[in-house]
Amino acid sequence: MPDSWVNLSESLGADLHLELTGPGSRRAVLIRALRDAVRTGRLAPGTRLPPYRSLAADLGIARNTVADAYAELVAEGWLSARQGSGTRVAHRAEPLRPARSAAHRAPASRPAHNLLQGQPDAASFPRTAWLAAARRALTAAPNDAFGPGDPRGRPELRRALTDYLARTRSVRTDPDRIVICSGFAHALRLLFPAVLSGPLAVESYGLPFHRDLLAAAGVRTHPLPLDQDGADVGDLAASKALRAALLTPAHQFPTGVPLHPDRRADALNWARTAGGYLLEDDYDGEFRYDRKPVGALQGLDPEHVIHVGSVSKSLSPALRLGWLVLPARLVGPVLEAKGEREAWAGVTDQLTLAEFIAAGSYDRHIRRMRQCYRRRRDQLIDAVTTHAPHLRITGIAAGLHAVLQLPAGATHSDESTALRAAQWQGLALDGLSDYRHPAATMPPRHGLVVGYAAPSDHAFPGALEALCRALPADVGPQAR
Amino acid sequence: MPDSWVNLSESLGADLHLELTGPGSRRAVLIRALRDAVRTGRLAPGTRLPPYRSLAADLGIARNTVADAYAELVAEGWLSARQGSGTRVAHRAEPLRPARSAAHRAPASRPAHNLLQGQPDAASFPRTAWLAAARRALTAAPNDAFGPGDPRGRPELRRALTDYLARTRSVRTDPDRIVICSGFAHALRLLFPAVLSGPLAVESYGLPFHRDLLAAAGVRTHPLPLDQDGADVGDLAASKALRAALLTPAHQFPTGVPLHPDRRADALNWARTAGGYLLEDDYDGEFRYDRKPVGALQGLDPEHVIHVGSVSKSLSPALRLGWLVLPARLVGPVLEAKGEREAWAGVTDQLTLAEFIAAGSYDRHIRRMRQCYRRRRDQLIDAVTTHAPHLRITGIAAGLHAVLQLPAGATHSDESTALRAAQWQGLALDGLSDYRHPAATMPPRHGLVVGYAAPSDHAFPGALEALCRALPADVGPQAR
Repeated sequence: MPDSWVNLSESLGADLHLELTGPGSRRAVLIRALRDAVRTGRLAPGTRLPPYRSLAADLGIARNTVADAYAELVAEGWLSARQGSGTRVAHRAEPLRPARSAAHRAPASRPAHNLLQGQPDAASFPRTAWLAAARRALTAAPNDAFGPGDPRGRPELRRALTDYLARTRSVRTDPDRIVICSGFAHALRLLFPAVLSGPLAVESYGLPFHRDLLAAAGVRTHPLPLDQDGADVGDLAASKALRAALLTPAHQFPTGVPLHPDRRADALNWARTAGGYLLEDDYDGEFRYDRKPVGALQGLDPEHVIHVGSVSKSLSPALRLGWLVLPARLVGPVLEAKGEREAWAGVTDQLTLAEFIAAGSYDRHIRRMRQCYRRRRDQLIDAVTTHAPHLRITGIAAGLHAVLQLPAGATHSDESTALRAAQWQGLALDGLSDYRHPAATMPPRHGLVVGYAAPSDHAFPGALEALCRALPADVGPQAR
Repeated sequence: MPDSWVNLSESLGADLHLELTGPGSRRAVLIRALRDAVRTGRLAPGTRLPPYRSLAADLGIARNTVADAYAELVAEGWLSARQGSGTRVAHRAEPLRPARSAAHRAPASRPAHNLLQGQPDAASFPRTAWLAAARRALTAAPNDAFGPGDPRGRPELRRALTDYLARTRSVRTDPDRIVICSGFAHALRLLFPAVLSGPLAVESYGLPFHRDLLAAAGVRTHPLPLDQDGADVGDLAASKALRAALLTPAHQFPTGVPLHPDRRADALNWARTAGGYLLEDDYDGEFRYDRKPVGALQGLDPEHVIHVGSVSKSLSPALRLGWLVLPARLVGPVLEAKGEREAWAGVTDQLTLAEFIAAGSYDRHIRRMRQCYRRRRDQLIDAVTTHAPHLRITGIAAGLHAVLQLPAGATHSDESTALRAAQWQGLALDGLSDYRHPAATMPPRHGLVVGYAAPSDHAFPGALEALCRALPADVGPQAR
């Protein structure tokens, strides 16, 4: 064959798997094989077939035999040949396929308005800047980036995060102490039970998904009460068995208060005394709207705080990229839990995010989104203040959601009624009760958790109007 | 502020977290905060500071105060200002950082020649074509692609895989029956123990990593003997408890034989009769060098075979993308094991791979690599035949590795000696014994597993020479 493989590969169309078996001439066998491939759907309508020469070389038969077979199938209507576009599978009725799965069809109907917490505006993903960063990053990457991955994650990304988190979140660390993961849930899976053991103190209101994940890992959780200063960490010393506490210090999830400075100090003192760890879920630390930013707890004691962040709120939950900033003595155990090679985080997004941060695009995107979400938050406050002045709005200094608290004396049933009213208006949102730890002892709180980030800019006003229609009227305490 | 957020975000440099607390004027407090940020390393050398106006707006102080503070710090040497590039952190001695982790330093020394199996040539990753596909895919993607991900994976990718696998691997499926994962190990984790329970039949030689992973999940494995026709599936009926078998039908790993057609039929009959499943690890099915390609087992019975593939050998193990092609009744349970949202596979690579396949770039890449690896395989055969004609080379019809079998009568000690000789020549490769199931009862085999894909094109000849120097001389049977 006079062609080098480079020229050959460039001249080829689709790759094709054919078995030439059974009776008859080469030509007849090839025709049967191609016909079957089309009939059974292995060759989809519109698929381009390889040029005669390539298929002939692959199958070890004469070029004319392939040309004859193609011509025959064109004549029969299985293939179609057009000048300049080669030979393709003809557009015929859809082929027979095995029975479809009945399970997991598309959901019956989508709510008209998405005010679920925890989802950034998907329409604002910075596609152009991300692609530009990907181009620079993949062009500059060393070849070994495409070999088996280091479980710590790419050094480019760990360096970029070290500087970025120091600058914006007061995190003090070193690229060697960062381990890349695919998000907060993955961080929990890596830590429990391989690195830390339960019971784990958690906040009385928090993500059920995290509690379920911990329960599945055999980790018992102990709920800390919450008040206007965040989690009551005085409770940590009550149980001698506790060795770790999961906190959301910058913006308690979902009630929205920052952890009071005295509580921060108390929590760190507990960790030092008990030889324990604070697990800091910095889930939306980038989005602060007030003058007084709240730095990461980790900066106060890098040896007792495990700081976990991700791009799920800042860029997209679909990227699946997060990081653990670890105390020195936990780096080894976490890497051991992760395994010898990177099995989770893909290299292209790691390299792209590193470049995206280094080029300042991450800063620009977060500033842009911060202003967008702040504007929406202000609109939410205006609307609720106008339509339902009896509801208190809390947790609005930061983040992507607010809590509309039902008046004092409201019950679980009032919350359910409010949620049903919201559902009636086509609104997807959660009640505060959904987040309560089943073993929590603090007095229950009732309200609606309103995420204002998920809708696109053009869909937000409509969602807000629907919310206002759904909000409960002030029946006054005497009516109860 | 007259600027809209778009203009403002574009004019801004780095995002910065500062806490303005303590005694003194605003100016003094700001200077102290910035100085501390530089001294503690939170602001890395070279970092660009925000323009006066932005920082002033963020902190709620006068613009002149910021300008004064910057000027003071430039005078002190903490910052540097240059025409046109704004104010940056000066290049000073590296800041103090918390103690580095002692664990997991870079390995002491890398072997000179990498002949480990299972790694494609990292230098051949098709960066340009991948970036072009990423550009088209991210531009065309709907907005909801950047919202929380469907645990099935992107429909674009599942559609592209359905057609591709039908065409090249004879897989018969439907996009609804494909679930995206991050590779074969992730597929095993999803299936065991949530969807399938042990004991699981495996081949007597196979990846220790998979056995370890199954053991960690509490799954017992039962080794099937191997011969020249692949796994002896007659053994499946011996144990009444078995409900699943993990097989490598296209190219037994690592010995390299395809599963005989009669054995395929027997295995499927067992699965139908026992109500069990065959788990098909199609780890290198794309790389076949001989005339007779071997289609996937799945095509013969889509309701009893779980077909698992990935791009780890075909593109890069660093991408972390794979797929399960499932029997209809397992789709629901696998999705349940995966969770409500996609937690693993990133959306950008999913969309890019879909476009990469649809545009024919995947076919072109595989053809190119197939010819490259086939050439290397031929060079390996030539070299071994010349330098060590007493060694049998097996498993060469397909894949990215070959087995150099030690002569009949060789012992484990002979294999260790051969591996030490290889190590002495700077070669990284494995012995066959490394892959043997600890409970295997078949007679042991001894040999070297030579991966010929990992080195770059320019490194391969050197690796081959080193291998030839390391190969054991023929001592003849009488010398034993």
